Amino acid sequence: MSDLLTYRAAGVDREAVGRALARADAAIRSTYTAAVVGGGGHFAGLYRLPAGSDLVLVASVDGVGTKALLLARAGRLDVAGRDAVVHGVNDVAVVGATPLLALDYVAGGDLDEDAVAAVIAGAAAACREEGVVLLGGETAQMPGVYRPGALDVAACVVGVVEAGRLCDGSAIRPTDAVIGLASSGLHTNGYSLVRAVLDRCGWTPDTVVEDLGGPLGEVLLHPHRSYRRALLALARTGWLRGAAHITGGGLPANVSRILPAGCRARVFSGSWPVPAVYHVLARAGRIPPQEMWATFNMGVGACAVVPADRAEAAVEICRAQDAPGWIIGEVVAGERGVDVV
Amino acid sequence: MSDLLTYRAAGVDREAVGRALARADAAIRSTYTAAVVGGGGHFAGLYRLPAGSDLVLVASVDGVGTKALLLARAGRLDVAGRDAVVHGVNDVAVVGATPLLALDYVAGGDLDEDAVAAVIAGAAAACREEGVVLLGGETAQMPGVYRPGALDVAACVVGVVEAGRLCDGSAIRPTDAVIGLASSGLHTNGYSLVRAVLDRCGWTPDTVVEDLGGPLGEVLLHPHRSYRRALLALARTGWLRGAAHITGGGLPANVSRILPAGCRARVFSGSWPVPAVYHVLARAGRIPPQEMWATFNMGVGACAVVPADRAEAAVEICRAQDAPGWIIGEVVAGERGVDVV
Repeated sequence: MSDLLTYRAAGVDREAVGRALARADAAIRSTYTAAVVGGGGHFAGLYRLPAGSDLVLVASVDGVGTKALLLARAGRLDVAGRDAVVHGVNDVAVVGATPLLALDYVAGGDLDEDAVAAVIAGAAAACREEGVVLLGGETAQMPGVYRPGALDVAACVVGVVEAGRLCDGSAIRPTDAVIGLASSGLHTNGYSLVRAVLDRCGWTPDTVVEDLGGPLGEVLLHPHRSYRRALLALARTGWLRGAAHITGGGLPANVSRILPAGCRARVFSGSWPVPAVYHVLARAGRIPPQEMWATFNMGVGACAVVPADRAEAAVEICRAQDAPGWIIGEVVAGERGVDVV
Repeated sequence: MSDLLTYRAAGVDREAVGRALARADAAIRSTYTAAVVGGGGHFAGLYRLPAGSDLVLVASVDGVGTKALLLARAGRLDVAGRDAVVHGVNDVAVVGATPLLALDYVAGGDLDEDAVAAVIAGAAAACREEGVVLLGGETAQMPGVYRPGALDVAACVVGVVEAGRLCDGSAIRPTDAVIGLASSGLHTNGYSLVRAVLDRCGWTPDTVVEDLGGPLGEVLLHPHRSYRRALLALARTGWLRGAAHITGGGLPANVSRILPAGCRARVFSGSWPVPAVYHVLARAGRIPPQEMWATFNMGVGACAVVPADRAEAAVEICRAQDAPGWIIGEVVAGERGVDVV
């Protein structure tokens, strides 16, 4: 228990992936045509449909990651299907688009009937709630690829938005307010680090941790919250200047993605209640604060940027759509980036 | 070497997945709206865009499966990215749709920089050739899920077709001809069974097998062929009544998917040259013929159904698009299904 836990110590080398993506960047961009809207870097890809249509296709693919291991052990693989769909729904909704369809992907070594059926049932339930059609999917059994009992769950979500209603952050300006919407737990990020903490402490999801007032699993297994209704309600008001889904990389990296040049966000870490689970994980794993902020959502699952004089009304609109939130920061003039203060 | 090898013996229980999908069917269908075209069962999902557009979105997700293990060992992970894209491109093109965009998904335990960069470079190269934008992707490092060195590669491909030009097989009638287009190898199907044969025989991809005239790996690692140009050229003639991508389940199962009620296909197995690799695998693994036909494409990677009097011209059109083929069968009146005779 003496040394610090970091993502790298948990077996994940994010820098290697970052270097690979940087190397692949030119190849990826070589496929771009005039149909690509913006220049990439959004939470979902944007593709303008051919002539005669004013619609932009918005497409995203996301996996549940190692959260699936905890869910499988807890017999809650329905949550894995649900999480994969909701992750994509949020990625599509942050640009103001309406998600239309999802495709699921389930792969494992010794996939059993119950596991596959549970994942798809969860994906379908989330689709129904989100007004999305579960249009297809792939189930792959791959002995030799997966560890025994392990499986991987991902989904692709596609939506549309009228080109004129696309909300890509370019309208954000200094003095705007940053609204944070409450997450429902860790969503799907940081679970390799969480597993390293559990291993180190000898904890299981059933371990009752005093500060949580109950078993760890209750927080760790909670499904990813959908922000679709809140974000699309904000988009309809015309106030929404940009929105970010807080996923891998945490609040600083994800809010940075939507800021235009010359805009910096200041996020006041004391402006919302950081849930106890993050304090528990930081203490148990001796995880440095910077690693915590770059890994976990810290209680904020999505951010919306609106003019300051609309901020309180925007929070009310989100609350009415079952997405409680707070004014957590402001946009200032400065180099593109985020300061958590 | 005494017992028969079957897919189940290779560690894959396709029936379990089939039962799971049957159990999930009602949940999947509960997400359907009036926007879903047909009733599922196509190679790609079909979704009619909202009012004001005549376009049907066509979406598919596919993985490369355990072929990725052989490709990784051979240092050819670019082929994995290429295969994932081309698989989806073919799934979209068989309904007469133009593929527009792809999203890649790369996951593994100890993903290294070179592996990820190679997969994405291969996916991007295939996208360029197919006129598809590589619009996004996800790269997931998941220690604890994958076996050391193993990785999984999948892609989602989305295309569009005008509703009136959708080619779903419903126009197929008795007397139509079935055209088979030559595959470029096993594509991405049957690799778990192939690995079981290799293990049993003590072979590696470098093993020179007499009947192949060279190392096994040359055939096993060959990229998936694209039929997009040939299929879309046929669609433009107005002759194309249905097309099938020959993937998991082989020729019988995949041709069955496009036949309307009252139509049966007779496929003449002597009407094209079944490549030597299939004879080698059947003999080495003592794989029963029915298992061979239900697992491998046997040299035919896609089928197109056209009126009999257009069949020879259709073969010429495909050949001109770099997709050699043969007239391999006919449609007869009968119960929906395929006889290989």
